Amino acid sequence: MSANFPQREMCTIGETRFVEMVFPEQANHYGTLYGGNALALLGKSAFVTASRYARCAVVMAGSERIVFEKPVRVGQLLEITGRVVRVGRCSMTVEVAGIAESLPDGARTPVLSGQFDMVAVDGDGCPVPIRPAR
Amino acid sequence: MSANFPQREMCTIGETRFVEMVFPEQANHYGTLYGGNALALLGKSAFVTASRYARCAVVMAGSERIVFEKPVRVGQLLEITGRVVRVGRCSMTVEVAGIAESLPDGARTPVLSGQFDMVAVDGDGCPVPIRPAR
Amino acid sequence: MSANFPQREMCTIGETRFVEMVFPEQANHYGTLYGGNALALLGKSAFVTASRYARCAVVMAGSERIVFEKPVRVGQLLEITGRVVRVGRCSMTVEVAGIAESLPDGARTPVLSGQFDMVAVDGDGCPVPIRPAR
Amino acid sequence: MSANFPQREMCTIGETRFVEMVFPEQANHYGTLYGGNALALLGKSAFVTASRYARCAVVMAGSERIVFEKPVRVGQLLEITGRVVRVGRCSMTVEVAGIAESLPDGARTPVLSGQFDMVAVDGDGCPVPIRPAR
Amino acid sequence: MSANFPQREMCTIGETRFVEMVFPEQANHYGTLYGGNALALLGKSAFVTASRYARCAVVMAGSERIVFEKPVRVGQLLEITGRVVRVGRCSMTVEVAGIAESLPDGARTPVLSGQFDMVAVDGDGCPVPIRPAR
Amino acid sequence: MSANFPQREMCTIGETRFVEMVFPEQANHYGTLYGGNALALLGKSAFVTASRYARCAVVMAGSERIVFEKPVRVGQLLEITGRVVRVGRCSMTVEVAGIAESLPDGARTPVLSGQFDMVAVDGDGCPVPIRPAR
Repeated sequence: MSANFPQREMCTIGETRFVEMVFPEQANHYGTLYGGNALALLGKSAFVTASRYARCAVVMAGSERIVFEKPVRVGQLLEITGRVVRVGRCSMTVEVAGIAESLPDGARTPVLSGQFDMVAVDGDGCPVPIRPAR
Repeated sequence: MSANFPQREMCTIGETRFVEMVFPEQANHYGTLYGGNALALLGKSAFVTASRYARCAVVMAGSERIVFEKPVRVGQLLEITGRVVRVGRCSMTVEVAGIAESLPDGARTPVLSGQFDMVAVDGDGCPVPIRPAR
Repeated sequence: MSANFPQREMCTIGETRFVEMVFPEQANHYGTLYGGNALALLGKSAFVTASRYARCAVVMAGSERIVFEKPVRVGQLLEITGRVVRVGRCSMTVEVAGIAESLPDGARTPVLSGQFDMVAVDGDGCPVPIRPAR
Repeated sequence: MSANFPQREMCTIGETRFVEMVFPEQANHYGTLYGGNALALLGKSAFVTASRYARCAVVMAGSERIVFEKPVRVGQLLEITGRVVRVGRCSMTVEVAGIAESLPDGARTPVLSGQFDMVAVDGDGCPVPIRPAR
Repeated sequence: MSANFPQREMCTIGETRFVEMVFPEQANHYGTLYGGNALALLGKSAFVTASRYARCAVVMAGSERIVFEKPVRVGQLLEITGRVVRVGRCSMTVEVAGIAESLPDGARTPVLSGQFDMVAVDGDGCPVPIRPAR
Repeated sequence: MSANFPQREMCTIGETRFVEMVFPEQANHYGTLYGGNALALLGKSAFVTASRYARCAVVMAGSERIVFEKPVRVGQLLEITGRVVRVGRCSMTVEVAGIAESLPDGARTPVLSGQFDMVAVDGDGCPVPIRPAR
């Protein structure tokens, strides 16, 4: 077992994870994941993580500093994990982190991170209290 | 803790998981996930799972019976898990299963399943042996 | 007239055909049509063929064995034909076959095939009888 | 056999045909096929038809008058036929016509038409003579 | 200040402008903007320009001659300007022009042009008078 | 002339602007622009603005606080303006702001804002000095 392999992936409550292969259609013309697509992937993770935690519709209120530490290359795997790190009355903060994984050796490198503020809303888009986790 | 909630998600070697929110753009005009998009999601899971297991390029050789048990509705979460269930010299079988999760109550329903044959290839697309998992 | 040219294309009832050019955005990073996109094209053919035959809404119930015989290269044409091969009370089987066509010489090679089970449904997604072909 | 059903579809040399189901994702917010997407479908037909005729790379030089006669509704089938109607030394004119087909009764209505000028090019994008049809 | 730089961009009433970077996913396999995507960008410009002028829903009735003067290369910027050039009772003509801009030297080259007929419609898709510009 | 109409739009050096119509395919199932797509639009503006200013390839290093002040509804226009507000040796800060415009009355509401750090790079992705604006 390679030391780099994520041998056991345990997702606790309020955590979601997905793995994407970076395809040419997501890249700019330098062969790396285009920033606009990276932002969309981070936002998707925040959205799914918050929806799953609050068990209702959510909208994005904003993000704190997002860091693109290293470029992600076409052909790498990108694992994105979202985690609820703060729960307020109607809002949550979701921390999202991206790790690039090279296929040949499984080497894993942190590449993206950010925090997103998500608000639980009703059908009219008005904030609603987040029910305590059961 | 709801009995339906996936309290701990453990991915073992050769398993990958991702969660998507079903959006209107992925639906047909009846408000359910369109079959073509469902197939693409299953295929993506098989592709990422096999690539991560074999640590090299892979191509799809085909699929065994795919079953769409129940429609997946817009606004549901869809969790898709791929798992390597057979490893041959140059090929693998990946079993993919999809579970729909309703936001309000977290109820989880199996909705999709299939098996895909994936082949490890070199840069010219020729089959190469799959290295034993370390 | 090249022997390879599809001199007359006759579509009988319950058959539909479309031709796509394989573009880089549909390819993986090895320059061939990505399996997930190929599945989506097969599914689209099954969907359109069944809808046109049953003259009502249809959903996909599943697929039998799908075979990806050969890779399809960027820049090739891909002709996909769907054909209703079995009609039951509320369901149909659609056979889908894909042929890659090289531009320079028009050489045609079978590359994809599969069978899909499609169900005629009403507005609530409940199965309805397929009306006999007129 | 309904009088409206396209009983036999014969494509002669230099003709290609495809059928699409109009999905919500291709529509504007009035529930009809968005003009930009309709243009893209017409252009795709011209591109595939010309490529298949000339058996080489082609680029679009322009279009003559394009007419959107009637809106195409979500849930209708759209059959698009491209036909080479003029062949010059290095260029061709492709006539493209779209017919909307309603599922319930198979009624077919001409909805789109246009003419596109396509030029055969080599790898550097320079015009090359179109070889006579064999 | 380079002579080629668009030093002041003034948009008058009934004019809209947008700038895109041409990405590989919009290109054909010769590395230039694919005609179908170019048509879609021109159509989008006509749609937004007409909507903004008429302050109501609009649909495309057709286009006059569209000219693709030069190929647009991956990595170039493409600036597209739409301008209302004729206003009738219920319809408008929008002139759309595209200029490619090279990054290294800012050289600007006209590459695309066309005219689109747009019709103001109500919620049922029926033509409605265009209110005089205030 | 409505008080709300952007009578003259002057783009100075280092500023780019584009207008989009929010389509159903960009919305979540509550009928408002989905956060992930909003992030992608902001990122695209930062990317194009920085590329045009630096006249070379750029990559995104990160973003400062992004604020989604109000939801953007399907059928609204969204005008996004990017402006270079800081230029360092190899990096720039681009401020991006989005204004939603209602079609019926042209009312304009600030809805999105953010700051992005962009780095000028050479073909290998290494930072290069930004040449002074000419």
